[in-house]
Formats: sequence, structure tokens, C-alpha cells
Amino acid sequence: MTDKLIIFDTTLRDGEQSPGASMTKDEKLRIARQLERLKVDVIEAGFAASSNGDFDCVQAIANAIKDSTICSLSRANDRDIARAAEALKGAASGRIHTFIATSPLHMEKKLRMTPDEVFEQSKLAVRFARNLMDDIEFSAEDGYRSDIDFLARVCEAVIKEGARTINIPDTVGYAIPELYGNFIKTLREKVPNSDQAVWSVHCHNDLGMAVANSLAGVKLGGARQIECTINGLGERAGNCSLEEVVMAIKTRRDYFGLDVGVDASQIVQASRMVSQTTGFVVQPNKAVVGANAFAHASGIHQDGVLKARDTYEIMRAEDVGWSANKIVLGKLSGRNAFKQRLQELGVVLESEGEIMAAFAKFKELADRKSEIFDEDILALVGDESVATEKEQYGFVSLSQRSETGERPEAEVVFTVGGQEVHGKSDGNGPVDASLKAIESHVKSGAEMVLYSVNAISGSTESQGEVTVRLQNSGRVVNGVGADPDIVVASAKAYLSALNKLHSKADRVAAQG
Amino acid sequence: MTDKLIIFDTTLRDGEQSPGASMTKDEKLRIARQLERLKVDVIEAGFAASSNGDFDCVQAIANAIKDSTICSLSRANDRDIARAAEALKGAASGRIHTFIATSPLHMEKKLRMTPDEVFEQSKLAVRFARNLMDDIEFSAEDGYRSDIDFLARVCEAVIKEGARTINIPDTVGYAIPELYGNFIKTLREKVPNSDQAVWSVHCHNDLGMAVANSLAGVKLGGARQIECTINGLGERAGNCSLEEVVMAIKTRRDYFGLDVGVDASQIVQASRMVSQTTGFVVQPNKAVVGANAFAHASGIHQDGVLKARDTYEIMRAEDVGWSANKIVLGKLSGRNAFKQRLQELGVVLESEGEIMAAFAKFKELADRKSEIFDEDILALVGDESVATEKEQYGFVSLSQRSETGERPEAEVVFTVGGQEVHGKSDGNGPVDASLKAIESHVKSGAEMVLYSVNAISGSTESQGEVTVRLQNSGRVVNGVGADPDIVVASAKAYLSALNKLHSKADRVAAQG
Repeated sequence: MTDKLIIFDTTLRDGEQSPGASMTKDEKLRIARQLERLKVDVIEAGFAASSNGDFDCVQAIANAIKDSTICSLSRANDRDIARAAEALKGAASGRIHTFIATSPLHMEKKLRMTPDEVFEQSKLAVRFARNLMDDIEFSAEDGYRSDIDFLARVCEAVIKEGARTINIPDTVGYAIPELYGNFIKTLREKVPNSDQAVWSVHCHNDLGMAVANSLAGVKLGGARQIECTINGLGERAGNCSLEEVVMAIKTRRDYFGLDVGVDASQIVQASRMVSQTTGFVVQPNKAVVGANAFAHASGIHQDGVLKARDTYEIMRAEDVGWSANKIVLGKLSGRNAFKQRLQELGVVLESEGEIMAAFAKFKELADRKSEIFDEDILALVGDESVATEKEQYGFVSLSQRSETGERPEAEVVFTVGGQEVHGKSDGNGPVDASLKAIESHVKSGAEMVLYSVNAISGSTESQGEVTVRLQNSGRVVNGVGADPDIVVASAKAYLSALNKLHSKADRVAAQG
Repeated sequence: MTDKLIIFDTTLRDGEQSPGASMTKDEKLRIARQLERLKVDVIEAGFAASSNGDFDCVQAIANAIKDSTICSLSRANDRDIARAAEALKGAASGRIHTFIATSPLHMEKKLRMTPDEVFEQSKLAVRFARNLMDDIEFSAEDGYRSDIDFLARVCEAVIKEGARTINIPDTVGYAIPELYGNFIKTLREKVPNSDQAVWSVHCHNDLGMAVANSLAGVKLGGARQIECTINGLGERAGNCSLEEVVMAIKTRRDYFGLDVGVDASQIVQASRMVSQTTGFVVQPNKAVVGANAFAHASGIHQDGVLKARDTYEIMRAEDVGWSANKIVLGKLSGRNAFKQRLQELGVVLESEGEIMAAFAKFKELADRKSEIFDEDILALVGDESVATEKEQYGFVSLSQRSETGERPEAEVVFTVGGQEVHGKSDGNGPVDASLKAIESHVKSGAEMVLYSVNAISGSTESQGEVTVRLQNSGRVVNGVGADPDIVVASAKAYLSALNKLHSKADRVAAQG
């Protein structure tokens, strides 16, 4: 068996399915570039057949990324598979990932199909896909809760049809490491042609064991691909977290004896980018990428005895990219330095005009803030007004006041389809008043289900990054806005969320 | 072997050691009451000998809690042990938890002791403790990286001296489930009198496997106590998370066959209380207690097919207390309803005067906000001004304004040792200006290392809860403040952090 472990990142597909985590094409492209820099083997870029927007994203990523294999999910039907193949045409290396559920519960209640029908459809789907592309992955949704003999029959058949990778997800996060590892092992033993495919694991974290289950699938089960996401992003409790699983393999090489191609020094940067893009915070006590994961990295020193570093440390903060958090630019930085830093951060602005606009915003920020961090730059270019897409709503200006004993008031000037409008309102606080001022014109009727602020580099002197999550008619979107004034950042975040509600098309749901 | 699994919660000791997570005595008491309601078997209340403040906390909790065993940590020396015993005098059921490191690295570099010296000191410590109290736990710090034969010799000796519980921590979070489970198993086989003690596991989450490691220690190793914390709070990547480990045991009873006494319906309430008290956010994709853990619980509906609930769900949200998030009180609620709700939330206000003060604040809030949630009430009574301790700094009033193109300005009135002062400043935003206005008088010189805001019940109409983390001369404190106006909440949080910096005494460091 090979000692190379394939890292398959599905932040842009399974991660994005998390309610509120949807991303624009530009955001996905930027993250895909960071995943390429991280040297993941496979990037699942989306689910091409689920919507035209998703198709465009997969296509754009397939065209832009050269070092990682680009993959699109598709249900096990010809239409989905053909769409996936079309979106992947430009890829240097493409993969179609087709799936169908194999557990009794899912077959009966979700698919309303008999096992024989599922068996047939699996075969036909892989056969059809194999005619369009060489690299085919087959997933048995809810595989871990499937009848193992039936599952083995399906796996044998799809390998015969040419599937190169067989993925056995623990879709509902029900597995225990020992049981899951042995399930994969027994399954492989039951499949006569099992050595003709790479076996893959895909675990969810509902009981907090996605990482351990994935690793047991590898160590006990003999799997050689792990499907995971940055920050463990994903529906419910999320997916197996890339940073944890990769650092476990690297730190415990004595036990696993496997190589991974991932460049760990890009992990923190990837984590920040995903967190800032989606508005999903990373808790301080999150392994590897949490602010406290390496107590000293964020300038925090332990009270206690730290006479030798390895007394309490098994990894070094710099190995996963913590040291990269440097002051990179300031007031005197020129346009070339700015451009180069953008490149290093994986931000590609298409035209000179866009670069000029971003640089103007950078200069304006540098006037108000002496130390410009990578996070500031990312917030700057992530800001809707630099985005290439024409937006329905745009921020212009804001004024507000509050005083103990009086009701806070705000006035917001913003654009609707290019026309300037003025909104005015009071509210429970200046932020509430500002958002009500916007809503007084827009009348979206959306319900706010989350509001949070984080200071980008710690203190209130830095930019505040606001996340607003809106829900309307069953759709959930996050808007993100950044500004040194958090009331302004809140208004920008609200407008950004309204833009997403305005543009987002309904999509077909995918597997977990 | 018994089929009862002991849940040992160390949120108030190992959890509190997390940089920035320090809590006041009142906060600790409130959390201890919630842990009692959660029916954990053992509450580690602190480390009595580490400071007078910690001694007071352990003593107060020992006096207040009747249904759980109260435990104090102590190093393996007579002074520490005697202090622990003294603090625990009032406990209905008390436990002394004494520890010493047994790994070559820790013995040599941290303790500067030979293995024979560590062996002798372990014996003497347990002997001394056993004369003061029946229930003694012994921990071998960094046990998992210790020489197993040496460790077995130590364990045999301390059991002979009367230790009832033997804890083998994975102090640095280096373990893998299979290896850790087998280590505990082999160790127990090497200890002739192993059946005279309960074996315990204590795992850290640096590689994301604390839960799986703990469970392997139980299933493969035969341990019958798990040490864990709410939200997985703890140094670096934190400890094994109570909610995940308990729900794994309950959900997979088919595999573990063990009983836990924990009342899972109190989990979400405990999680919120710990998060709000410490200012450590819980990420949305956190298992069991994250906002997205049960996608539908927070009003979020999956886009996709949800034809049968168990298709994607292995636990029910209401089983862990998600449904408890109800509107409980409003403008018309009377003093008795308020008092009763406080009791249900585990908040004990000592005097009638305090209850009156809290009720007055409640009425004031109800005037501004129609729906009052449990979170609002907890924020209200958590607010410094209701606290029993005399505080150095207190909030009085604030006015601020910002307008695009002009520099934001704020004026804050607050008390310093009872005297009113006025501070005025400009800043990058209204929050920055307000905190600078306070700092212009206080001149603490503290560095702000974290600033975050969360709306308590989702929208900006609700109260904003601000966390400010300050660092000064190596000490790190969190301040929390709540108000519908987030600029005011920020000022309150800043003053609360300054109060903690003002009062916090240096403490001895404990084991991980």
C-alpha cells in the first residue's frame, strides 16, 4: 500500500453548504488559490449541476487552478454528471465525484428507491462519467450506516466501471474510531477488486470525533484519502477539520508513517481567509488555528512554569503559519508593494482599474491606521465595493449619535441600483438605528439571526469586522463588512447581506 | 467492572487556566450551581493553595453545593494538601486531587527531581492527604509520556497509600485513541492492586482528538472517570469537551454500555453560561452546543431534502436543552416571576437589596426590549454593577457621535473608587473613542488583545454582549459588558476588565 495520503478539501462544497456560509465566485476563487498554495491534492470546488452560479464557480476555479485536481460533485444521473464534466473542461486535472445513498434509511425515505435500483444507478452513473473523464470518485452517501454486503456489491461494481476513488462517508457523524476503522477494513476485504481503487473517508463531527474517525479509517481501514474542510466548516457540527488531521499525521508520523503534500505553513492564512469570508468565527480553544492554540503566539504568555518549550508543546506555532501575522504595510508603502502583497495573499484583481480602486482604499485606511495587517488588506478587497459584480446596494455615508437617557439615532446614505437614498431611524442602539435606517427603504422583511463583531487585529484601533446573518423565505445569507467604525462596518455588512439575498438563486441540496 | 462512568468537570480549574478565562467568585459559584443542576459527579472547583482568591472560591463552592463531590487540586506537598483540605471542610462530599509529573521530560526539566524522588513524594503526599480526607485522587502529570513501568510502580504505591482514583492525563494532547486506550489497559495490567482504584482519563485537544482519546481510555483501557470541561474550555486547544463525550456515551450506548448521571437537558444552558462568563465564544460548527449543531434549532432550515428527521440526525436538539431558549419574561412580568426565573437559572442574589437592584435593571431593560430571554437575565445579573464585590471602576453614562468624513468623538462618565470622572476623546470609531476616553483618566497602559461583540439573541434589537481582553504585565483578563447600545456595552466591558486587572492576584500555575 502506498504511504501517500491524499488530502481532499471540500470547504467550497460541503463547507459552503453550512447555513450562512455561502460565498460569491470571487470569494471562492480566492480561497481556491489559497488551497492551491496550501498544496491540497484535490479541491472540491462545488456542485456544478445545483445552480448556474455553482457551475460558474466550478468552471472559474477549474480554469484558474493548476496544481490541485479540481472536482465537482454530482448526483448519480447523466444530467448532473454532464454538467460537472462541462464545468471541469478547463481543468489541468479534473475529477467527477458522483454520489448516491446506500443506507436503508436514505434509500427508502430520501431516494424512494430499492437497493437493486440504487445498485443499477450507481453502475450506470460511473459508466457514463468514465466516458467523459478519467478520474471518477464514487461516494456511498450514509455509507457507514449501510448494509456492508450490499455496499461491497456496489463498490465492486463501480470499481469495475472505472471509479478510481471510493468514498465511504459517515454522513451523520455517528461513528466511533475503532468501529469505523474496522468497517472500512472489512468492507475492503469484501470487495474483490478493492486494490484497484483508492479508499476515502469523509466524516462529520456531530459527536466530536470526525478527526479520530478519519484517522482510524486510514490506520485500521487502509483508506488513503481524507475529505476535510478548513476550520472543520460544514453543516451541523461540520466536517473533519483539515488542519487537525494534517497536523496529527505530521506530528505522529511515528504511528501513521504516511506522507501528506500539504504545506502546513499556509494553514493559519487559510483558516483566517475562510473565517473572514464566511463570518464563521474560530473559537479561541480550537486546535491548531484557535487564537489560544499556541498560548504564546498571540502575545499571551502562560502564567506558569515553562522552563522548556517541549514540556507543553508538541507542535511549533510557526510550523502552521502563526508567525506570518506580521505588520506588512504602512502609510508609506507604494503601489508595487501593495500589488505584490495582494499576489502573495492570493488576491487577483482583474483590471488595473480595480487595483487602483483597492490601492486608493488602502491609502485611505493607512491614513487612519498606522499598522496594516494582512487581515486588513483582505478585509479591504473583500469589501463589496471592490467586487467585480454589480451590486444592488452600496454604502455611501453614515452619521449617528447616542447619549445615555436618549434614544439613539442614525442616518444612512446608500445606493439602490445606482440611485442614492437617505434612510433615517432611531433604534435600541446606534447599530440598530443604522440598520433600521437602511431597512426603512429596502423593506426586505429579512430576519436577523446573527450579529457579531471581531476586531481584525485585536484592539478597537483596528478595523472591526462585522458579520450579519439574515434569513428570508428559508434562505440564509451572511454579510461581512469592515471599517474602523463598527457602526459603519455594521451598515456595510447589512448591505452586503442584502446583496446576497438579492442575487442568490435557490440551489439543489447535496450530500452531507 | 462497574457500568457507571464518573463525569469529573474541571471547567472551574483547568478551564479557568485558559489565558483570559479567569472568573470571579460569584461567577464560579453560579457555574458550580449549573454544574450541580447538570448532575456532574465531581466538580473540580479550583486549586486552593494557588492563591487566597482560589481558596475562597473552593471554600464557597464546597459550602454551597450538595449533590456533587467538590474537589480541589493540589501539588504533591503537605502545604498544598492541607490548604485543599481546609477549603473543602464544608463540603458534603470532598475530594483532594494531588498531582506530580512522572514523564522524564517533566521530572527533569520542570521538577528537577529524580524518578525515585518523585516516587517517594507521591507516596508521602497521598499518605498525608489520606489522613485528612477519605476521597483522594492522584494524577501523574504528563502520564501518557511516562515510562510505563515506572508509572505502574507509582500507581501501585499510591493506591496502597489509599488513593481511590488514579488519573493518567495526556497533558500535551499527543495521544491517538488506539494507543492511549492500550496504554491505560497495559498500565492497569501492570499494577497488581489496580482493581482497588477507579481509573481516570484527562485528555487535551491539541490534535483534535481529546474526546476520542478519552472514550478509548474508557472502552479499551477500562477507565471509569472522564475529566472534561464545558465547551472544551482549557489551555491551548482546551480539554475534552463534556457535552461531546457525554452525548457520545448516550448516543452510542450500544457500543459503550455505560451509564452517566449527567442530565443532558442542562447542557446548552451550561454552555451559554460558561461562554458568556469567560467571553470565549463557541463556534457555530461546534458539536452539540454550536449554533448550527442542530441546523433547525436556531430557526435555520436546511435547503435540502429533510423527508425524515433521522435521515440526518442522531440526537435531538431538545435532549441537550436547545428548546430551553424561550422568551421567558416581558414588560409585564412581576417581581416573583423574575425571582423564580433567577432561581431556575441558578442565580443566587444574597440580599433583598440585590434582588431589588436586579429587578430595577430588568424593568429598565424591559422598557427598551419587548422580549427578555434567559441570556438577557444572565447578562443583567452578570453585569458588574449588581455584583456584591466593591468595584474600583463603575459606568455612569456615555455620549458619542460619528459621521462619515469626521473623526468620531465620545464622552464617558464613570466612577473611580466611588468618585465620578469625565473622560473625553476622539478615536478611529465611536468604540475606540469611548475606550480612549476612559483610558485618558485611568492610564492603565493595558494592551487590548481581543475585542468581540455578539448579539445575545441574534439581532441588533437585542443586547450586544462585548468581550474585551486586556493584557498587562503578563496578566490577561477578560471583561464582559452588555447593553442594547454596543458602544455602551463596550465601555462597560472595558471597565469590567480594568476591575479584574485591578483585583487579580498572581497565582501559582497548575498542571495541564
